[in-house]
Amino acid sequence: MISLGKFIVVEGLEGAGKTTAIATVAQQLQAYQIHDLVFTREPGGTPLAEALRTLVKDSVDNEPLTYQAELLMLYAARIQLVDNVIKPALKAGKWVIGDRHDLSTQAYQGAGRQLDSALIKMLKNSVLGSFKPDLTLYLDLSPEIGLERAKQRGKLDRIEQESLEFFDRVRTRYQQLAQQDQSIVVINAEQSLEKVTAAIQTALSDWLNG
Amino acid sequence: MISLGKFIVVEGLEGAGKTTAIATVAQQLQAYQIHDLVFTREPGGTPLAEALRTLVKDSVDNEPLTYQAELLMLYAARIQLVDNVIKPALKAGKWVIGDRHDLSTQAYQGAGRQLDSALIKMLKNSVLGSFKPDLTLYLDLSPEIGLERAKQRGKLDRIEQESLEFFDRVRTRYQQLAQQDQSIVVINAEQSLEKVTAAIQTALSDWLNG
Repeated sequence: MISLGKFIVVEGLEGAGKTTAIATVAQQLQAYQIHDLVFTREPGGTPLAEALRTLVKDSVDNEPLTYQAELLMLYAARIQLVDNVIKPALKAGKWVIGDRHDLSTQAYQGAGRQLDSALIKMLKNSVLGSFKPDLTLYLDLSPEIGLERAKQRGKLDRIEQESLEFFDRVRTRYQQLAQQDQSIVVINAEQSLEKVTAAIQTALSDWLNG
Repeated sequence: MISLGKFIVVEGLEGAGKTTAIATVAQQLQAYQIHDLVFTREPGGTPLAEALRTLVKDSVDNEPLTYQAELLMLYAARIQLVDNVIKPALKAGKWVIGDRHDLSTQAYQGAGRQLDSALIKMLKNSVLGSFKPDLTLYLDLSPEIGLERAKQRGKLDRIEQESLEFFDRVRTRYQQLAQQDQSIVVINAEQSLEKVTAAIQTALSDWLNG
């Protein structure tokens, strides 16, 4: 019997296949009779956080968004989501499947933007304390492949228009953080869709049974 | 000859008379042949910062705004204002008159909300560095008098609806910070409008000639 919910996060570069991975996770949880699922995305997932997402993704009247303001708005959105949605859901026994969480900020703002690591660390500690996902599936692929897939989906947003060097730094940080944390499982996302799905199913089964 | 602009800020509780004080400052600067004035308000003053102001002042779909998210949104708005408006204006030789600045965050979020002082300090240092107003006029009055005046103006916003104890803490912090910083001049705002205006004019003249 499961008394408390779990928080599973899917992470990765643009075009890594997060949406499909989330559907795979949800299907498999349901096969395990876990039906009470909550889906979140970051930034976003609450009315205020979604408003912040819009401000971060699209510039207002072409005003340049400073990297620091971007960072603070991402954490403001994250506090709202964690306090008002994720923690209450877990407490009520629901399972939460997140499309991105704090690891994205570590990778994109920390390594991509190369923002002050002491500031990010303090924000993370202050906002999240010891709260973290129970399991993170990191979909690893080269930025070249990911951006090619993202382009086929349509117009790139402000962050997706960054340079390849930016995304190389992001990927390297993702890989480093995955090595340091046993709750992060790396999935090779350059394989065929069938193989990626099978890898996710195996990782999830191992974790659920482990 | 004045080569660089100056940043003058008016601070104080709700109902302290900031709007009138700003007009007094502007008139007197013009009497000194300083005509190139830029007016700012915080939070706000850029398209993005004004969007953040709206999110902070009015809740979105009645979602509770956490104190931490409020703090981060205020600093996000401040970075945008300082980088995109205040610093460029000062560099162009303009004088900037601000309706609130960082002192408000120290008083309202630091003392009023009693948020983690280490976090506020790190945010301030990270966002502002050594940047600060050249002169701050702090309009000091009791919260009872200020809130009575604010009520007469109309509906109170989310922050104006706080308790008297909250505003007592805010006022005490304003007074403490004014004592520690010679660039902050305390104006007794409980006097008649004529006396307050005269006190502002004297403080500004002393500073301009000093």
